[in-house]
Amino acid sequence: MTQTVTANSNPARAAAPGGPVTGAMTGPMPGPLNGAASGPSMAEGPGGASDGAAVQAAREAVERLASLLAEDLSAVDRLIHERMDSTVGLIPNLAGYLIAAGGKRLRPMLTLAVARMFGGGGENALKLAAAVEFIHSATLLHDDVVDRSGLRRGRRTANHVWGDKASILVGDFLFARSFNLMVETGSVSVLDVLAKASSVIAEGEVMQLAAANDASVTRERYMSIIGAKTAALFAASARAGALAAGQAGAAERAMEGYGRDLGLAFQLVDDALDYGGRTATLGKNVGDDFREGKVTLPVIHAREAAGTPEEQAFWQRVMSDPSSQTEGDLPRAQALMMRTRAIEATLAAARDHCEAARSRLVHAPDNAWRHALAALVDFVVLRAA
Amino acid sequence: MTQTVTANSNPARAAAPGGPVTGAMTGPMPGPLNGAASGPSMAEGPGGASDGAAVQAAREAVERLASLLAEDLSAVDRLIHERMDSTVGLIPNLAGYLIAAGGKRLRPMLTLAVARMFGGGGENALKLAAAVEFIHSATLLHDDVVDRSGLRRGRRTANHVWGDKASILVGDFLFARSFNLMVETGSVSVLDVLAKASSVIAEGEVMQLAAANDASVTRERYMSIIGAKTAALFAASARAGALAAGQAGAAERAMEGYGRDLGLAFQLVDDALDYGGRTATLGKNVGDDFREGKVTLPVIHAREAAGTPEEQAFWQRVMSDPSSQTEGDLPRAQALMMRTRAIEATLAAARDHCEAARSRLVHAPDNAWRHALAALVDFVVLRAA
Repeated sequence: MTQTVTANSNPARAAAPGGPVTGAMTGPMPGPLNGAASGPSMAEGPGGASDGAAVQAAREAVERLASLLAEDLSAVDRLIHERMDSTVGLIPNLAGYLIAAGGKRLRPMLTLAVARMFGGGGENALKLAAAVEFIHSATLLHDDVVDRSGLRRGRRTANHVWGDKASILVGDFLFARSFNLMVETGSVSVLDVLAKASSVIAEGEVMQLAAANDASVTRERYMSIIGAKTAALFAASARAGALAAGQAGAAERAMEGYGRDLGLAFQLVDDALDYGGRTATLGKNVGDDFREGKVTLPVIHAREAAGTPEEQAFWQRVMSDPSSQTEGDLPRAQALMMRTRAIEATLAAARDHCEAARSRLVHAPDNAWRHALAALVDFVVLRAA
Repeated sequence: MTQTVTANSNPARAAAPGGPVTGAMTGPMPGPLNGAASGPSMAEGPGGASDGAAVQAAREAVERLASLLAEDLSAVDRLIHERMDSTVGLIPNLAGYLIAAGGKRLRPMLTLAVARMFGGGGENALKLAAAVEFIHSATLLHDDVVDRSGLRRGRRTANHVWGDKASILVGDFLFARSFNLMVETGSVSVLDVLAKASSVIAEGEVMQLAAANDASVTRERYMSIIGAKTAALFAASARAGALAAGQAGAAERAMEGYGRDLGLAFQLVDDALDYGGRTATLGKNVGDDFREGKVTLPVIHAREAAGTPEEQAFWQRVMSDPSSQTEGDLPRAQALMMRTRAIEATLAAARDHCEAARSRLVHAPDNAWRHALAALVDFVVLRAA
């Protein structure tokens, strides 16, 4: 079973359902970033690639990573299935619906690839990889309840199928199980990293909630939010891989930085896609953030570049009072974003963080894993095409 | 500021707001258990004590425990305030509303008293005590969202004040922070105990959800649910105290058993009180479980003892379809429970677990802490009077 990564797909929150991760990475690859960034093609869909060679190179490199990790990822999948099990049938049913159905396993890939790059791996790395996926899954379950999302990975969200109550409690279960896995590694330093990341993630989610419907959210505040809610777990996943391979000091910090920048880029792309995708090819509804009054960088950019008081008033109204939105508001927002090149600016910010992520790898061992981790950076941005 | 423990009060889910725990334990004590258990006095309220000497003894012993622990509990309160803090103001506001406003701190008391009994204590015991209170608080926040509760500790629930979303996310934050505290102790064995307890609690909550509106829930299934959702944290709290004091093996197991039996007794009393209390003196609405179709031991007992097919049909209807309930249904349920002595049977089961809890203390060091822990057992049941 393969996962089709179409142009404008939104794997951050809406990876297409699919089987094993190896399959996920070998599906059709997106077109180039420039296609998405340059105004009119924002909703063009796949194809129309210009930058074909770069795309092809990224695709091959990510395929290499997937095949390098194939055995590890299968082991992690087995571990995930084993540890989400319970005599309480609702738990594996609901968790399996979310986890087993697919997703890219990006965070476990980080843990595993970093560990392997430093010559590590083995049982503890597998457990940590499963643990970070559990933390991520728990967050997704709670996010969907909080956001009242209807779609994820192209299907109804778990809370729409089983109800909010079940999603809240099964999320708690997965979160607790993630700590069970970490404890089994016996490493207090890894526990420290992941426990801190977990509270930062929750803090980020609360920050985001507090910022909802506040049209005045600044770029700085937005970056704090995505740094906490998304990048903290990427950073911790990569750092856990370094720790699992016995690294510390500069190498550990470099990997944390790599994960953090990658995570920031990932979320920036995700937020750009929320205005650039099309429902037909996305696993979530386009404009979800807009309809929730979630102020993301495309909005901040368009609002800051607004030409008239009337445009200012538009952003103020649609963000602070989403219930006032009418049918024409989303297209108008998209048009204003095109004019102000807001999506392009957001993706440019993402590329800056990709560059920073890549630069963190320079002192790492020069092996196939490192090249694959560099390729992963490209993949994160290229999926926006 | 003192907490008034009135007859029929329901500290399990509805401790009166109040200040430090020392205060909580020195308020007026409840009347004797027998008053509650013997049919007509079920809703009698305070006073009418017969068993005055036992009550007086329990009161004095618990006061001793509170004063023995006064310094530790103040330190734990400071730690709790420090660790629930965040630059995201909503977090300390919401968490403070729940935590700082009071509660009996029963679970931290277990950890601290057990540690002291074995000659332990100090920084790690304080951190573990704060950690178990955080786990408990996170569970309460999520419980109130799941149960759509309106009242806790005599006030509006946090989700009624700040909304479900905030309660879900701040609950996640407190849960993560509990692990931060545990990690700081550097003890993998304690982390193991508390991480396992956390997943068992979540499992218990899901079991309870799956059992909702299922009138056929058996006594065995009910005991599994309360064993997981309530007793697991009592057990882990006491066990953590033993571990913090360097105990292992038989002593550790005995303390776990003590906590577990105490927790089972506590929940049984709580479930009896849901049919025996009066809104005026309770921090929650009487009949909450009934209105939710939550099948607890009083219901199971009354249903099993039902005399006629019509009574069977009554229980079947009110539990499986709470929306069909009319005004007279709760009084009728209470009357059927009186006739079948269902509350009495539930409190008798609680007393059996109290006895078992006390028996776990026999090989513990014979000191003031042990006597205080034995007194805590009495307090748990006497609050039902």
